[in-house]
Amino acid sequence: MTEEQKKTVLLAHGGGGRLTADLIEKTILSRFKNDVLGQLTDAACIDVGSSQFLFTTDSFVVKPLFFNGGDIGKLAICGTVNDLAVSGAEPKALSLSLIIEEGLPMETLETILSSAAATADSAGVPVVTGDTKVVESSAADGIFINTAGIGTKIDGVNLSFDRITPGDEIIINGNIGDHGMTIMSQREGIKFDTPIKSDCACLNGLVAAAVKASPNAIKFMRDPTRGGVAATLNEVASSTGLNIELIENALPVDPTVRAAADMLGFDLLDIANEGKVIMIVASEDVEDILQACKGHPLGAASAVIGTVLEADESAAVVEIATAIGGRRVVQMPYGRELPRIC
Amino acid sequence: MTEEQKKTVLLAHGGGGRLTADLIEKTILSRFKNDVLGQLTDAACIDVGSSQFLFTTDSFVVKPLFFNGGDIGKLAICGTVNDLAVSGAEPKALSLSLIIEEGLPMETLETILSSAAATADSAGVPVVTGDTKVVESSAADGIFINTAGIGTKIDGVNLSFDRITPGDEIIINGNIGDHGMTIMSQREGIKFDTPIKSDCACLNGLVAAAVKASPNAIKFMRDPTRGGVAATLNEVASSTGLNIELIENALPVDPTVRAAADMLGFDLLDIANEGKVIMIVASEDVEDILQACKGHPLGAASAVIGTVLEADESAAVVEIATAIGGRRVVQMPYGRELPRIC
Repeated sequence: MTEEQKKTVLLAHGGGGRLTADLIEKTILSRFKNDVLGQLTDAACIDVGSSQFLFTTDSFVVKPLFFNGGDIGKLAICGTVNDLAVSGAEPKALSLSLIIEEGLPMETLETILSSAAATADSAGVPVVTGDTKVVESSAADGIFINTAGIGTKIDGVNLSFDRITPGDEIIINGNIGDHGMTIMSQREGIKFDTPIKSDCACLNGLVAAAVKASPNAIKFMRDPTRGGVAATLNEVASSTGLNIELIENALPVDPTVRAAADMLGFDLLDIANEGKVIMIVASEDVEDILQACKGHPLGAASAVIGTVLEADESAAVVEIATAIGGRRVVQMPYGRELPRIC
Repeated sequence: MTEEQKKTVLLAHGGGGRLTADLIEKTILSRFKNDVLGQLTDAACIDVGSSQFLFTTDSFVVKPLFFNGGDIGKLAICGTVNDLAVSGAEPKALSLSLIIEEGLPMETLETILSSAAATADSAGVPVVTGDTKVVESSAADGIFINTAGIGTKIDGVNLSFDRITPGDEIIINGNIGDHGMTIMSQREGIKFDTPIKSDCACLNGLVAAAVKASPNAIKFMRDPTRGGVAATLNEVASSTGLNIELIENALPVDPTVRAAADMLGFDLLDIANEGKVIMIVASEDVEDILQACKGHPLGAASAVIGTVLEADESAAVVEIATAIGGRRVVQMPYGRELPRIC
């Protein structure tokens, strides 16, 4: 990066990779330092009176606004519901705040809002408060949506990096990279014989099913959105000091999505998902949780994709055992992979 | 409005006046209908487990980003703290979500974040969760900030349109129109010998002082932001079916702000405030509350500015007894007054 680049915010600062982590750590956290924010979890756990709550927020700037499998309205609801769900919370209420570019067709707004409303409805989480701002033409890009959400801890769930130990196994509830590759293909104008489709979905039902099977079994959950599986597992490695081994042959992948990734030069491990959760589970519990996930419509293709290992002397890393028998390190993505993917 | 205009979102839809109310009612509420959202209060009151919470959100798109008396960072904290405070809540936690235009100087971001952090700190409300997105140059305008907040009801406070009765008096904690006229003058490049300054401030301390004086005395509170005092009081009139009479001579106004409004052709009643609260109080309690407000640094210029009256046969209206002895109706602003004022 040039000295000049260091002095400005770059698109890659929003990509969910190393540069985003840098910006958050150096520019944001240094100013708002408090114990809760400092944990950098998907949702903040706060004590209010005698109760414990989870509180989260996300802004959505996805481009295009409509994509196969969803739109910015659906995405904005799912994203915040999922941040609560993977934090072990039952989502209770959402806010919805719109920044609209002047000139947006009213019909577009209506379609997006109908989609958001239907998604919130089927997830069983009400939108209870909101805000609407309008800016001049070319001061925004169609519409941006922020949602915040609050939830209550599900009884018996105990998620923490500290619980992760060597031997734990890593579950994902289905194909990786579908959301990111759908957006990217659509942006590049690439069509496939078998259309690819975003996995955008609210995961609170699936998480509830897995938790019900064995509340204490799940040690950690995270939805691998921006930065994909690579960013999530690199965070696990660096936070626990443990190594992670992925098995390439075990990764559930849609063949057309793989073809799209190959064609566009992406590694699917870096690509955003919007209906996926990674769960880390003790090996004795993995079958229970896997079956619970498979029994849910959003988890039919669930699979164990890797294992947590003892660290060796060097820094903790994520490695993948490749299909052709090799091994390579899965790096933390840098951030420029996919701007405006969510 | 032409048929074509009806089919698109206009800048005035974000102005906080009649068009904003229309958009919210017809386009948003119709889709997300639930009892909590339908109340359209500044913050939603939700029951979670055995506790009651207030939950609110606001996106900030103010232009310019820096203005005399504040900046978008300070404004984003104050706006959400104030929505909780005027809902009778003690603010407990905030979220902060950034949408940044690529190319924003890092120093600008840092200054804004430092200001937000200092404001949150002095209001005593921690930022506990956040999000950062970056969009391409010209897909946003510098930076937009969303904050959401949660708070707990202050004991003994009971705010409701239903409690408002004829004879109640209307208090404001100081000069009207300072924020909007500061932004507008700066945008137009107008300078004054005595510089005017936004009133942007967190009101939780002032509200707590007033509540402490007599918790049950305050029947209604609202911060007159977009749409100003006119929009707030028109909402009171239409929600209660009662008339409201303002006394022009009683309105606290900075003379330079008045000159600016006259020069630019604005009615200060329509202009946004960012550090003001309107309180409606029974006449027997008004002196207690007024003195409590005056005793707080943000309430030195507090005044009783009007009275709630019986409705006559026609629809409930806001009227003002003018300085020159006349009377006129204060309309709900239409919405085009001041785009991007907050």
